[in-house]
Amino acid sequence: MHLRIPDLIIKKRNGHELSKEEIDFFIKSICESNNNSVIQESQLGAMLMAIFFRGLNFNESYYITHSMMKSGACFDFQKHRNLVVDKHSTGGVGDKISLPLAPALAACGLKVPMISGRGLGFTGGTLDKLESIPGFQVSCTKEKIESLIDEVGCCIVGQTLELNPADRILYATRDITGTVDCIPLIAGSIVSKKAIEDLDALVLDVKVGRAAFMQNQEEAEKLADYMIQISRKLGLKAGVFLTRHDNPLGKAVGNQIEIIETIECLHGNVRHDLEELITKYGGYLLQRVDKCETMVQGAKIILEKLKNGEALEKFRQMLIGQGVSEKIANDLCNRNYDAVFKQKAKYLSTIRAQTNGYIKSIHALELGLLSSKLGAGRAKAGDEIFYEVGMNILKQVGDKIDLNEPWIEVHHNSEHFDTHFAQKLMNSIEIVDYPVQFESSIIKIIDYA
Amino acid sequence: MHLRIPDLIIKKRNGHELSKEEIDFFIKSICESNNNSVIQESQLGAMLMAIFFRGLNFNESYYITHSMMKSGACFDFQKHRNLVVDKHSTGGVGDKISLPLAPALAACGLKVPMISGRGLGFTGGTLDKLESIPGFQVSCTKEKIESLIDEVGCCIVGQTLELNPADRILYATRDITGTVDCIPLIAGSIVSKKAIEDLDALVLDVKVGRAAFMQNQEEAEKLADYMIQISRKLGLKAGVFLTRHDNPLGKAVGNQIEIIETIECLHGNVRHDLEELITKYGGYLLQRVDKCETMVQGAKIILEKLKNGEALEKFRQMLIGQGVSEKIANDLCNRNYDAVFKQKAKYLSTIRAQTNGYIKSIHALELGLLSSKLGAGRAKAGDEIFYEVGMNILKQVGDKIDLNEPWIEVHHNSEHFDTHFAQKLMNSIEIVDYPVQFESSIIKIIDYA
Repeated sequence: MHLRIPDLIIKKRNGHELSKEEIDFFIKSICESNNNSVIQESQLGAMLMAIFFRGLNFNESYYITHSMMKSGACFDFQKHRNLVVDKHSTGGVGDKISLPLAPALAACGLKVPMISGRGLGFTGGTLDKLESIPGFQVSCTKEKIESLIDEVGCCIVGQTLELNPADRILYATRDITGTVDCIPLIAGSIVSKKAIEDLDALVLDVKVGRAAFMQNQEEAEKLADYMIQISRKLGLKAGVFLTRHDNPLGKAVGNQIEIIETIECLHGNVRHDLEELITKYGGYLLQRVDKCETMVQGAKIILEKLKNGEALEKFRQMLIGQGVSEKIANDLCNRNYDAVFKQKAKYLSTIRAQTNGYIKSIHALELGLLSSKLGAGRAKAGDEIFYEVGMNILKQVGDKIDLNEPWIEVHHNSEHFDTHFAQKLMNSIEIVDYPVQFESSIIKIIDYA
Repeated sequence: MHLRIPDLIIKKRNGHELSKEEIDFFIKSICESNNNSVIQESQLGAMLMAIFFRGLNFNESYYITHSMMKSGACFDFQKHRNLVVDKHSTGGVGDKISLPLAPALAACGLKVPMISGRGLGFTGGTLDKLESIPGFQVSCTKEKIESLIDEVGCCIVGQTLELNPADRILYATRDITGTVDCIPLIAGSIVSKKAIEDLDALVLDVKVGRAAFMQNQEEAEKLADYMIQISRKLGLKAGVFLTRHDNPLGKAVGNQIEIIETIECLHGNVRHDLEELITKYGGYLLQRVDKCETMVQGAKIILEKLKNGEALEKFRQMLIGQGVSEKIANDLCNRNYDAVFKQKAKYLSTIRAQTNGYIKSIHALELGLLSSKLGAGRAKAGDEIFYEVGMNILKQVGDKIDLNEPWIEVHHNSEHFDTHFAQKLMNSIEIVDYPVQFESSIIKIIDYA
C-alpha cells in the first residue's frame, strides 16, 4: 500500500482511526532529514492540530508511542532484569522528589536510568537543579548511562540525540503550534521516553490542582488512563499516583536551594510532605519488582535508606559519575554548602505574616511564577537560569503562625523584587483562625491491571 | 501589543474570534522570507487546521481576504472606472465559459483583467487550455497586463509573483495539509484574487452537483454567502450564480478541443447550455456597470458580439497580445485548426449508444476523471498535460438517440484506453424511454445587496 501524508491528515481530520502502518509511516516520516523528507513541517503542524481536535484512541496512542520509542536507540538492561525502575512526574513547584528517590532506590540495589527534563513556566526542572552543582553533566551518551547504571545504580540525565528523536521533534513542534494540551500526545510523549529505558516498573506522578499542569481531575484521570493503557500494551508495568498539588512540595523553590533541601533530605532531615511521596513512590517500585510484599514495607525500606546515609552515598557517587569533582561532591554531601555554591543571591528578603492563625494554604502556582520571574525558571525554552535565586518557605500548611512572624525568605538579585512583588507573596498565603490538618496529597493510586 | 503566533493559534483553536490586527500579523508573517520568519511552516499548518475545525466568521474572513489582497501589488484601473469586470468559476468539466466571455465583454468596451488558474483533478484549467495554442504566454507582468487592458481590453493570465503572495502560500500549504475544504478559506482565496483587479463588478459562478467542487447545495450557498459578504465589506460589487453541474458544459472536454469549441462559439456556433451562461454572465456584468438596464438586455448584447465577429476579433488580438504569432492567431480564428494544432492524438475511438431513447444525463465527473486519466488533466499539481487528448460529446441531454448511434469520440494516445475505460464511458450516459427537457443550469442568482 502506498501511503501519502495528506491522506493520513484528512483521515484523522475526518475522525477516523489511523492504522499501525499509517502511524508508523507518519512517525518514520517526521524523523527523516528535513531535505526531501516525505512530510513537510506544515503537514506535521496540521496533523498535530487534527489530533488535538479528533484525539487518538488507546490503540492509536499505543501505536504512536511504540513508533516514537522505536524511532531511536533503546536500552537493553537484560542483565539487570527485575531491577530496573523509574519515576516520572508531570511537574510541580518545589518538586524535588526524583533527586533523593533515585539514589534511595539505587541504595536498595535497584537500577534507575532516569531520563529527565528541564523546567518551563512555573515548574522547575530536575536537570536545571542538578546543573546548579558545579561540574554536573546532564548530557550523557547511551554507553555512559549504561556504565553509570552498572557502577552506581542510578543516573539523572537529559534526552540524547540518539534516543527517541520522534519525541523531540513532536514536542518541539507541539510547543509552537498550540498542540501541547492534548492528552493522548502527552501520554505518548511521557510513556515513550520511559519505555526506551527497558524498565521493570514505572511510577507516574500525575498532579492535579491549581499548581499542576492539569487543573481538573477528570483530565488528570484521562491522562492516567491513557498512560496505563499504553504501558500495558507495551508490556510495561506502570502505576499512576494521582496527587493534589496546590501547595509547594517541601520548603525550597529554586535550584541551588532545592539541591540543599535534597541533601538535607538525604541526611534524614525531610519534611513530611516530601517524605510521604518519596517513600511511597519508592515503596511502590520496590514492591513492584518483588523486593518486598507491600508498598508500606517498601516505604519503610526507603526511609531507612534516607536515614542511614546509604542514599546519600549513592547520590555522591552519582554526582562524581556525572562529572562533579570529588571535592565538590564531598563538600555538598557534608552540608558544606558555602564551599559549593559560591554564586550567591545579592539580597535576602523576608516576608512576614499579616495576621495570626493557622496556615490553610500556600499558593504554589504563584510562588512558582514569582520564582521564575526572579530568574529561577524560564518563561520560554532557552531562557537563562539564575541558580542562586529562589525561595525558602519557613512554614507549612497546618502550622500555627503569629502576626509578623516570617514565613518565606526570598533570595534575589533585586531585579523584579519590588513592593508589587512582595504584595503578591503576601497574598499567596492563606491564614485562617481555626486549626488546619496536614492532608496526604495522594488522591488515588491507579495500578497496572 | 506584542503578538505571538502560538497565542493566535491557541485563540483560534479555542474557538475565539481573531481581530483584524491579529489576522494582519498572521498574513504578514507568512509572507516574510522563510529564514528567520516569525511564523514557522508547522505553525501555518496548525493554524489552517484550527481554522478548518473552528471556521472564520464574516468579519475574520473579510480581514483575512483584505490582508491577502494587500500582501502584494494591486491594480489601479481608475482611468477605466466603471468598465472593469471579471468572472470566476469554481470549475467544471468542459467549462470554457471564460474563453469567449472575456473577449465578448471587451468587444462591449469593458475591461477584463482576468487572472485565472490551472486544472487539478477532474476539472480543466483555463490557462492549460490557452497554453495548447502555440506561443500563448500565461505569465505576464503587472505592466503587461495593464497594457493589454489598455490596448485589447482583455487578457487571461496566471498569478504572478508580485500579486497576492499570501494566497499563493496559503493555497500551496492547504493543498498538502488537508485544509482545502474550508469554506471561509476558499471564499477568501477567490475574492482576494479578484479584489486585486480593482473591479467595478464581478460575477461568481458557484457550481453544485456531482461534477462540482461542492456536491451539496447547502455548502455551495454557504460559500456564496461568504463571498458576497466579504465582497460587500471590500466594496466590491459581486453577484453569485449558483449553477447545477451534473452534465458536461458544451461538447468538448480537453484542451485543444475546448479551444476549437471556443472558436466555434466565437463564430456564433454555440451550444445552448454554453450560450445561456456566457450571455447571462456577460449580461449581468453589463447591467452592473450600467451599460444596459437589465441582465436580459445585456445577454442580447453579448450574443450579438458572439455572432457579429467582434468578440472573435478581440480574442485574436488577445492571442497576439499574449505571444501568439499573427499567423497562428489568424489560422485559429479562421478555423484552420489543422494548421495550428500539429500535435494530434494517435487514435480516435467512438463510443455508441447501447439502447434507444432520450439522453437523461451524461456523467460529467466521470468524463472529467477519464479525460484527466488520458492526459488532458492533472492528478496532482505539476503533472504534465497532453493538449491533444480529450473527448467530443456528439449528443446532449434531451437528445433522442438510437441504438449504436455514436455519442462520444475520444481522442487518445492509447495509454489507459482499454475495454475497462470504454465500459466506464458507456456507463456514464443515462438513456431513458421518455422525452427529457433541457433545463437551465442556473439555480439562483444571489446578488450584492
